[in-house]
Amino acid sequence: MDVKVAQIIPVIMAGGSGKRLWPLSRSSMPKQFLPLTHELSPFQQTVLRVQDELFGIPIVITHTDFRFFVEEQLKAISVQGTILLEPARRDSAAAIAAASVYVHEKQPDALILALAADHYIEDDMAFRQTCAMACESAQAGNIITFGIKPTSPHTQYGYIQPEKTPLTTGGYGVMKFVEKPDQDTAQTYVDAGFLWNCGNFLFRADVMLEELKIHAPHILEPIMQAVQQRTHDLMFERLAPAPFLRTSSISIDYAVMEKTDKAAVLPCDFAWSDLGTWDALWDISPHDADGNALHHSSSDSVHISHTTGSLIRSQGQVVAVHGMSDVAVIATKDAVLVMPRAQSAALKDIVHQIDQQTAHTAPQAAKEYRPWGHYEEIDRGARFRVKRIVVKPDCRLSLQKHLHRSEHWVIVHGTAEVTIGDCVKIIQENESIYIPLGMPHRLANPGKIPLEVIEVQTGSYLAEDDIVRLSDDFNRI
Amino acid sequence: MDVKVAQIIPVIMAGGSGKRLWPLSRSSMPKQFLPLTHELSPFQQTVLRVQDELFGIPIVITHTDFRFFVEEQLKAISVQGTILLEPARRDSAAAIAAASVYVHEKQPDALILALAADHYIEDDMAFRQTCAMACESAQAGNIITFGIKPTSPHTQYGYIQPEKTPLTTGGYGVMKFVEKPDQDTAQTYVDAGFLWNCGNFLFRADVMLEELKIHAPHILEPIMQAVQQRTHDLMFERLAPAPFLRTSSISIDYAVMEKTDKAAVLPCDFAWSDLGTWDALWDISPHDADGNALHHSSSDSVHISHTTGSLIRSQGQVVAVHGMSDVAVIATKDAVLVMPRAQSAALKDIVHQIDQQTAHTAPQAAKEYRPWGHYEEIDRGARFRVKRIVVKPDCRLSLQKHLHRSEHWVIVHGTAEVTIGDCVKIIQENESIYIPLGMPHRLANPGKIPLEVIEVQTGSYLAEDDIVRLSDDFNRI
Repeated sequence: MDVKVAQIIPVIMAGGSGKRLWPLSRSSMPKQFLPLTHELSPFQQTVLRVQDELFGIPIVITHTDFRFFVEEQLKAISVQGTILLEPARRDSAAAIAAASVYVHEKQPDALILALAADHYIEDDMAFRQTCAMACESAQAGNIITFGIKPTSPHTQYGYIQPEKTPLTTGGYGVMKFVEKPDQDTAQTYVDAGFLWNCGNFLFRADVMLEELKIHAPHILEPIMQAVQQRTHDLMFERLAPAPFLRTSSISIDYAVMEKTDKAAVLPCDFAWSDLGTWDALWDISPHDADGNALHHSSSDSVHISHTTGSLIRSQGQVVAVHGMSDVAVIATKDAVLVMPRAQSAALKDIVHQIDQQTAHTAPQAAKEYRPWGHYEEIDRGARFRVKRIVVKPDCRLSLQKHLHRSEHWVIVHGTAEVTIGDCVKIIQENESIYIPLGMPHRLANPGKIPLEVIEVQTGSYLAEDDIVRLSDDFNRI
Repeated sequence: MDVKVAQIIPVIMAGGSGKRLWPLSRSSMPKQFLPLTHELSPFQQTVLRVQDELFGIPIVITHTDFRFFVEEQLKAISVQGTILLEPARRDSAAAIAAASVYVHEKQPDALILALAADHYIEDDMAFRQTCAMACESAQAGNIITFGIKPTSPHTQYGYIQPEKTPLTTGGYGVMKFVEKPDQDTAQTYVDAGFLWNCGNFLFRADVMLEELKIHAPHILEPIMQAVQQRTHDLMFERLAPAPFLRTSSISIDYAVMEKTDKAAVLPCDFAWSDLGTWDALWDISPHDADGNALHHSSSDSVHISHTTGSLIRSQGQVVAVHGMSDVAVIATKDAVLVMPRAQSAALKDIVHQIDQQTAHTAPQAAKEYRPWGHYEEIDRGARFRVKRIVVKPDCRLSLQKHLHRSEHWVIVHGTAEVTIGDCVKIIQENESIYIPLGMPHRLANPGKIPLEVIEVQTGSYLAEDDIVRLSDDFNRI
């Protein structure tokens, strides 16, 4: 039977804030936006995976803090999409509900493919073929979950037990969903033909809303209001905070999948990983003959000898590892992690402990991204702080002033347009300018190449929150 | 018999350039000048060990590159000394010969105590008592070497076999010196009562010269000329390069001790280490209940869990180590080392390999010391470089100019006196100044507190060698 397949609307869930890849991932820089295996981030790879005639324009749903990452990373791969912003962190039920309500407004029976933004799938073609195969069953009213055929008795994944007899539209009914097992239980699951629950779903918008109404009305009702009362902000659609905050943080598995009789599972053969640990990352990385996976920004930065089965990352510093087996050594500018690769699931607790003890290092990455570009702190003393600021072409920072600091700007690359009080000047490479304390000022890049500025701040209080924004292109006032 | 003990002249040999504590030690920053176990360096601890009425004013012999370390570190502990400068790297024979010739000029029968600057001795009092005990034998014409009673069958030390019968003046004759053994041989040495050869000696200047004349005239003859033709330079005595360069690089053990019949060994009971490996440093460091030794600049920077027997150092970044046993994790600003502690003797080869591959990182430490203070590179781009420069009170850099770069200076602490061309100005905190390419300039600290300056260099060639010195307080023109 040659069925005309409807277009699928991809919904990419990019609001997670994992710290399980610390010190690379931080609260302010979650893993879906990091170049983990590739120069593209998992988010970008996920978006590109559904750039095909089978799929419509993607919808990205993310936390408001990450909106400029999403915008910039979409732009970098030349993809247009709708960006829905969540005002707070909730789990997948709220995100899927919001996307379903949003899509349902325009086309009630539209097919939605809900995808995690931070997963790895090796074979995009196989993934798309699987999606195409799942359409008939989803159009028939099933909520399809993708069940990955296990390659090992993994203890960090949930499992799905499929029914014995296939559905007529393809796939299988679901006997049950089960939690992360211990090692022995995992083996019995694998032997019994259970599948990994990868948390990606295909369904009709109206079917999902109906099931949410039955099984999770406490999620659906406020989410419907949050979508209906949404506001436009630049290229973003902001869900209304008041109703949104009434939802609870719960996964779609708990809220709907484990309760509905419409759940179906499609066994999938492609290599998949949730990139949830350094071990998982090692697993899917290219290895040398000794089983080492190296990630470094310059080819001479990682040196290994008598080392096997290890994952080693450098962000530019020399990292020398000798005589180690199966370890993860992760070096960033401000933090180093050393641990057995196989124990990397324990990292969550370690990072929690570090967060408790080290308020200033863990949550922020050395490089901070902003809608106009990024900055990096390069030095700090008792009464001074030095940053390198990079402003994208045609972008500008807010018009702002500080109550506790003066600033010296030295232009080291590109051309700046600097506003100080009522005066606007063009400043070029190798020129500098002084911003007195309290004076309104703005830094803009009117040029065609990135503008790089060394900023030397002096004053008695130098934290980021000493900023009074008077005007901003990005509505951050 | 109550013998009047003559004063001993300590000669501290501080010219070594070990890389065995990489990444902390570098060619430009050898371990004797680093705060390894303590806020004082091994060099400073060695100097203070011989601050006692038994000892005269110390003589330090070092490579010319390290002269300002020696000067500054002596000043920091308020000790005056004579500083002999070697124009090239030679081994201990040349250093001991030079010191002996130098001392012999004034007092031919003076007692000399030749000490390595990079060793650890736990009990200074016990060490001084040992020196006092050795005086009679040295005055009688023996060359005393200190033999440490082994606490383990160490394979990284040479051994000394003492004769069975003690000498009448104390100590024992030497049966033989033996090289670093393998593990089994080491055990037979320990069982047979051999002692560790720690390379510290006590002797009469005239006796040493006599033995050098007999056994190593090819060292003694050029060294006599190098001392006689020495020049004064500020507080330094520079050995004459032309004759000095004719000496060969050979240890005093090979040159004299293994050949002379005047060798004697005094068994010593104090805890000693040559600090030659990370393992050795772990050995003598305070440990927590799990046998971990942590060294960090701030108390919240090292986080360990389920880790035992490990040496972990941070220079400010967060270092998290989980689930490891008996490893060394050494993090500096620009390099990270991870290896089993017990294999740290292999580091020499590893660093050699890194040196081959990474010309720019290994030899220099992030912080570079100069006679007027120090600087640190904090950022670098294709056409710019940012340094933090710290100038000591009452010091100034050379009057200089650059052919390929301009410089912006922002004063972030203290007060600067800046010379640009014919103009001299005082610049204070939160002020800046611009140095055009080619313009003679000088930075001075006329104040009472350290001057800190953020320097932003821009230009097409930014290496340290673009400097034309027109005048210098430290004779570096």
